[in-house]
Amino acid sequence: MLLQLSTWQETEAYLKQSTGIIIPIGSTEQHGPMGFIGTDAICPQRVAEELSNRTDIMVAPTLHYGMSQHHLEFPGSVTLRPTTLIAMIKDIIYSLARHGFTHFYFLNGHGGNVDSLKAAFSEIYSEASLNAESSPLHCSIVGWYEGKRVSALEEKYFGDANGSHATPSELSLSFYVHPEAAKSAKMDPEIPPEGDFRDAADYRKQYPDGRIGSNSGLATAEIGAELCEGAVEDVMESYQEFLS
Amino acid sequence: MLLQLSTWQETEAYLKQSTGIIIPIGSTEQHGPMGFIGTDAICPQRVAEELSNRTDIMVAPTLHYGMSQHHLEFPGSVTLRPTTLIAMIKDIIYSLARHGFTHFYFLNGHGGNVDSLKAAFSEIYSEASLNAESSPLHCSIVGWYEGKRVSALEEKYFGDANGSHATPSELSLSFYVHPEAAKSAKMDPEIPPEGDFRDAADYRKQYPDGRIGSNSGLATAEIGAELCEGAVEDVMESYQEFLS
Amino acid sequence: MLLQLSTWQETEAYLKQSTGIIIPIGSTEQHGPMGFIGTDAICPQRVAEELSNRTDIMVAPTLHYGMSQHHLEFPGSVTLRPTTLIAMIKDIIYSLARHGFTHFYFLNGHGGNVDSLKAAFSEIYSEASLNAESSPLHCSIVGWYEGKRVSALEEKYFGDANGSHATPSELSLSFYVHPEAAKSAKMDPEIPPEGDFRDAADYRKQYPDGRIGSNSGLATAEIGAELCEGAVEDVMESYQEFLS
Amino acid sequence: MLLQLSTWQETEAYLKQSTGIIIPIGSTEQHGPMGFIGTDAICPQRVAEELSNRTDIMVAPTLHYGMSQHHLEFPGSVTLRPTTLIAMIKDIIYSLARHGFTHFYFLNGHGGNVDSLKAAFSEIYSEASLNAESSPLHCSIVGWYEGKRVSALEEKYFGDANGSHATPSELSLSFYVHPEAAKSAKMDPEIPPEGDFRDAADYRKQYPDGRIGSNSGLATAEIGAELCEGAVEDVMESYQEFLS
Amino acid sequence: MLLQLSTWQETEAYLKQSTGIIIPIGSTEQHGPMGFIGTDAICPQRVAEELSNRTDIMVAPTLHYGMSQHHLEFPGSVTLRPTTLIAMIKDIIYSLARHGFTHFYFLNGHGGNVDSLKAAFSEIYSEASLNAESSPLHCSIVGWYEGKRVSALEEKYFGDANGSHATPSELSLSFYVHPEAAKSAKMDPEIPPEGDFRDAADYRKQYPDGRIGSNSGLATAEIGAELCEGAVEDVMESYQEFLS
Amino acid sequence: MLLQLSTWQETEAYLKQSTGIIIPIGSTEQHGPMGFIGTDAICPQRVAEELSNRTDIMVAPTLHYGMSQHHLEFPGSVTLRPTTLIAMIKDIIYSLARHGFTHFYFLNGHGGNVDSLKAAFSEIYSEASLNAESSPLHCSIVGWYEGKRVSALEEKYFGDANGSHATPSELSLSFYVHPEAAKSAKMDPEIPPEGDFRDAADYRKQYPDGRIGSNSGLATAEIGAELCEGAVEDVMESYQEFLS
Repeated sequence: MLLQLSTWQETEAYLKQSTGIIIPIGSTEQHGPMGFIGTDAICPQRVAEELSNRTDIMVAPTLHYGMSQHHLEFPGSVTLRPTTLIAMIKDIIYSLARHGFTHFYFLNGHGGNVDSLKAAFSEIYSEASLNAESSPLHCSIVGWYEGKRVSALEEKYFGDANGSHATPSELSLSFYVHPEAAKSAKMDPEIPPEGDFRDAADYRKQYPDGRIGSNSGLATAEIGAELCEGAVEDVMESYQEFLS
Repeated sequence: MLLQLSTWQETEAYLKQSTGIIIPIGSTEQHGPMGFIGTDAICPQRVAEELSNRTDIMVAPTLHYGMSQHHLEFPGSVTLRPTTLIAMIKDIIYSLARHGFTHFYFLNGHGGNVDSLKAAFSEIYSEASLNAESSPLHCSIVGWYEGKRVSALEEKYFGDANGSHATPSELSLSFYVHPEAAKSAKMDPEIPPEGDFRDAADYRKQYPDGRIGSNSGLATAEIGAELCEGAVEDVMESYQEFLS
Repeated sequence: MLLQLSTWQETEAYLKQSTGIIIPIGSTEQHGPMGFIGTDAICPQRVAEELSNRTDIMVAPTLHYGMSQHHLEFPGSVTLRPTTLIAMIKDIIYSLARHGFTHFYFLNGHGGNVDSLKAAFSEIYSEASLNAESSPLHCSIVGWYEGKRVSALEEKYFGDANGSHATPSELSLSFYVHPEAAKSAKMDPEIPPEGDFRDAADYRKQYPDGRIGSNSGLATAEIGAELCEGAVEDVMESYQEFLS
Repeated sequence: MLLQLSTWQETEAYLKQSTGIIIPIGSTEQHGPMGFIGTDAICPQRVAEELSNRTDIMVAPTLHYGMSQHHLEFPGSVTLRPTTLIAMIKDIIYSLARHGFTHFYFLNGHGGNVDSLKAAFSEIYSEASLNAESSPLHCSIVGWYEGKRVSALEEKYFGDANGSHATPSELSLSFYVHPEAAKSAKMDPEIPPEGDFRDAADYRKQYPDGRIGSNSGLATAEIGAELCEGAVEDVMESYQEFLS
Repeated sequence: MLLQLSTWQETEAYLKQSTGIIIPIGSTEQHGPMGFIGTDAICPQRVAEELSNRTDIMVAPTLHYGMSQHHLEFPGSVTLRPTTLIAMIKDIIYSLARHGFTHFYFLNGHGGNVDSLKAAFSEIYSEASLNAESSPLHCSIVGWYEGKRVSALEEKYFGDANGSHATPSELSLSFYVHPEAAKSAKMDPEIPPEGDFRDAADYRKQYPDGRIGSNSGLATAEIGAELCEGAVEDVMESYQEFLS
Repeated sequence: MLLQLSTWQETEAYLKQSTGIIIPIGSTEQHGPMGFIGTDAICPQRVAEELSNRTDIMVAPTLHYGMSQHHLEFPGSVTLRPTTLIAMIKDIIYSLARHGFTHFYFLNGHGGNVDSLKAAFSEIYSEASLNAESSPLHCSIVGWYEGKRVSALEEKYFGDANGSHATPSELSLSFYVHPEAAKSAKMDPEIPPEGDFRDAADYRKQYPDGRIGSNSGLATAEIGAELCEGAVEDVMESYQEFLS
């Protein structure tokens, strides 16, 4: 059930049987020479929509912009500052909580969002804790790629070449979603270095084409279909556990 | 050209021929007994995507959440506070400006966003003005429904029954985009009152089913197709004028 | 009745018969070669004081500083950022609301304030809406020049030469209030161009002497007296309608 | 020279001979059974205007609202939170600094403003200090009542009955400015207690009619005239010293 | 009783007999050629710890960073902006207030903290005052050097050579606490000038070695022992008065 | 080398040989029936001071307050909100960066600080990235308990009974530092449950005496001495790697 395509009466009815919601969150940032700038939003959105098709879980509209400061040397990348992201997440959670939602499961496509979202959750909990109130809210952020099925598929198809940014795994899933836009490019080197980074200048200096440790060239829409299926099952399990 | 489906290299190439971008912005809020909660995002997103298909204009990912405090008595509605929205818009514009974008055309689906976005633009201009700098940035927010073609179609099909919230015009366009989810419901009364409102409690008291002055029941996907075509042409003209 | 010249006991008594208040808001910004930098505050303050003389309406002290970033290339202009203005308006409204005031009518002299004040009102309503409370507050911003009597006088005396900044209309009213300081200057060109603007550098480039579309030279204190009378009547009607 | 009644060209000319400005700041708060709610703004505004009449010192429009949280149990009192006041002062100083003003002399009528203004000055200096820049800005806040002439007059006319809030001194000056609105009331007790206070509830409990240690009933417009003269001379000296 | 070395059960027990707490606050800033950068934290911490040893007064962990923007031209100095300090103080007070603490006595070592802390207290009181609530909180900031015993010792040992920054008084106390780190240096000139300052560049220009009016060279650990004893007695009196 | 006990000249000299600094950060929060409320600050402070004794590494004064909202149902616990902590960390880093420090190693004693500190680092990097500047700053947060030596000792002495809050490991270290205050108490149950938590009410409900999965009763000062030694070596390695 997609919040976007529901009426308020349908949402009211949904709340009588569940107070949980999945909110896809991604980013708008470079994903190397072959990857979509929207990869991190496309992936969790599709996984969530599939889940919504098969179950009665409510899925909220996607948050397309995240914390991506380190990608700003690559054209098209957009960042929200952590404090902006915290303010945005607070407003969204408080709005939905006002209707009776209690379980907020952010299905994430971008590691860079995690600290800010967890800080936002703590900011929300802080208000209850400082006011000596007991908050009914449960907040969680989980990557679509964190479950065992997706991990197994990544290991099977890509092994060490999956890397950590512009991975063939996320590109495969995004190509499965948008085969009409799938791209290819020569990867040079095939597998770039891994490592940490600081600001955008540092990132670009270390990772000139944007990839970290990943051979994006291994991505295919076919593998993406398998990854999607695995992710849907992984997330369904994780979400059920979150609710209980 | 969709930023979401582009690579950073394609974005870099785009910037050599244009520094303008269209950013669809909507909201997540009730649209009466028949309307999608995502109506205000679905409409400008579709108009922008059509425009992108026919031209070389870059379109950014959609902002699905807006300033909708007055709808919070209806389940599923979400608001960003004006100050949150201002912070978010600033970060997005400054990020894109860093790559060389200069013309930011927010294609809007929700009147409630206008004040906050204009305040955000002034906040951005203030920094240049206080620093005695000349800003290269041009910021604009335009509703997809503001042009002459859409107005003529609204007048032709709905006349006074179009109203100002949950209008048959916006519902038609959203049904054209999502015919699989189009809904119908008895409108009672057929045309509810018009008027101002304050907070969510006041809004709901005055407009119990969420509509303001609109007979949503007149919406059809067929009219939506015409409205889409009209809006694409209206917006293309408006955007070209904005660039020049 | 002027809040500034009242005691708290008189204010307490006033609140038993009315919970409405008029708060003049202007700006401190250039008004061309002949206009006072304080024009936008002088005008609504005088209209409000006249109204206060003739009725029992409470008038608060004037807010002399507004959102004027676009004038900062002209010496003496001062801006509050939109977010500062929002914070200020919130504190003032919440303070007065604490005493029982419910209807806040900002009598405005400067178009640049409107977005920020409306955003402030939405920020205030958001708190009630997010907390599922029903706010007793009614907030409005109306320009002293918006009513039919003032419009008719502007049309009669200035027609197309009124323009939109440093208008002979507002200068006339301010000269009526401060005849001792009334100025004259050669207008060159007589009527400068109209149009939009962005930051202060852009504004000054387009409007080198500060006027937009206005022939300030037509201003006289005599017309100002008529405008004042018209504005008082316009605002009285508008305020009564707001209260009811 | 009043900024409010100047043109931008006149301000530009002023800046060639001086870069100092006096900004009156007061508050909107109860002043006991006889005192105007606007007392704290009326007094420094009048002293500044007198100074402006006799010299070429630029005086900015008055800030009528200050930090008055402790008066909020008395109808009509308005407070800006310290952080709001800090934001407002920063914007005003940065705006004027952009034109070349360097010396900002806030002529104060309300002790409650002092901490917030000094914090605002430190906030401004912090930006320069953290950026390893040398700021040209000089910021000062001085009460109109701090000089030796005013102190002597207070001692002469009121002695220990002057107290510290709703003093006969400030009431006298405000009655001199607005004799048409001067009030009288029975003071009971004649001299209320002195002491500290915390929030508004605490203040009202300790000082039920709003006065702290003052016999407001001694106020006269005649003494006000003398106080005004003394204050003008005190402030002129203090301002000259500040400039040098 | 040190909060840092207590359990929560011991704190719970303490709250049954007292709801007051002493919170040492200092700064991290240069103190001339002989003074520790931590002088302003070391001194109140030691005085508070001594007090805690002799009585049952609860002492909280020390705040080592304060508002020191004016020292930033000297390596090692750190500042919190006033608005940051306000936010920090608010969180600490609200946290402790939630457990039942009502009396917050900040024992201060640095004059530069005073405005910001008083602004923080007003910000806290503002919330109660705007909400028409009666706050149980009592907040105070007192320098360890403000009492009569310390003043007498300063007069006795240093007289006019005490000055106002990097004073032999504070250095003596810090040397008494950390004799292993006590330093000496030639003071040139013996007594530097006194006066005001603005930002860090201005401060360093006026006071090249960091001292203001003080002959740091007079500092000895022996005098420090006497000062500590005097301060403990001064603060004990002041704290008891604050509680009552 | 302790910043607190250095002069500015010594700091200036230090910066010629190194631009790195260690900043201990802890929290003020309950640590079960036997643990000090200051445990999380005491531990990293001691490890850092030992390190400073043996090497020439600069150590800054300890941050005693952290993000501890979940402990607020236990008396004495204090939290900074994530956004407050972000502001504080930014000011401290920017202050030290102004003097030439480039490598900021926060030696942490409390897991709850991590998200907020990483968000603060991203906020700092965002400014450089949005301004298209290359930041010289390197920021890191590492727990004193994260290295292999400490892990081995925890495994050796406590195994599964170490748990994750009020661990015998951290208590041992704090007892080693403050043997005079070491406490004992009956642990009931010996090992409480492990798990996640949300706000303070949820935490206390799940962990009534404050411990998570830990048998605090195993703590001894003797083991603390070994842990300290292990931590010093672990951190020395980690810091050297960070610098290079």
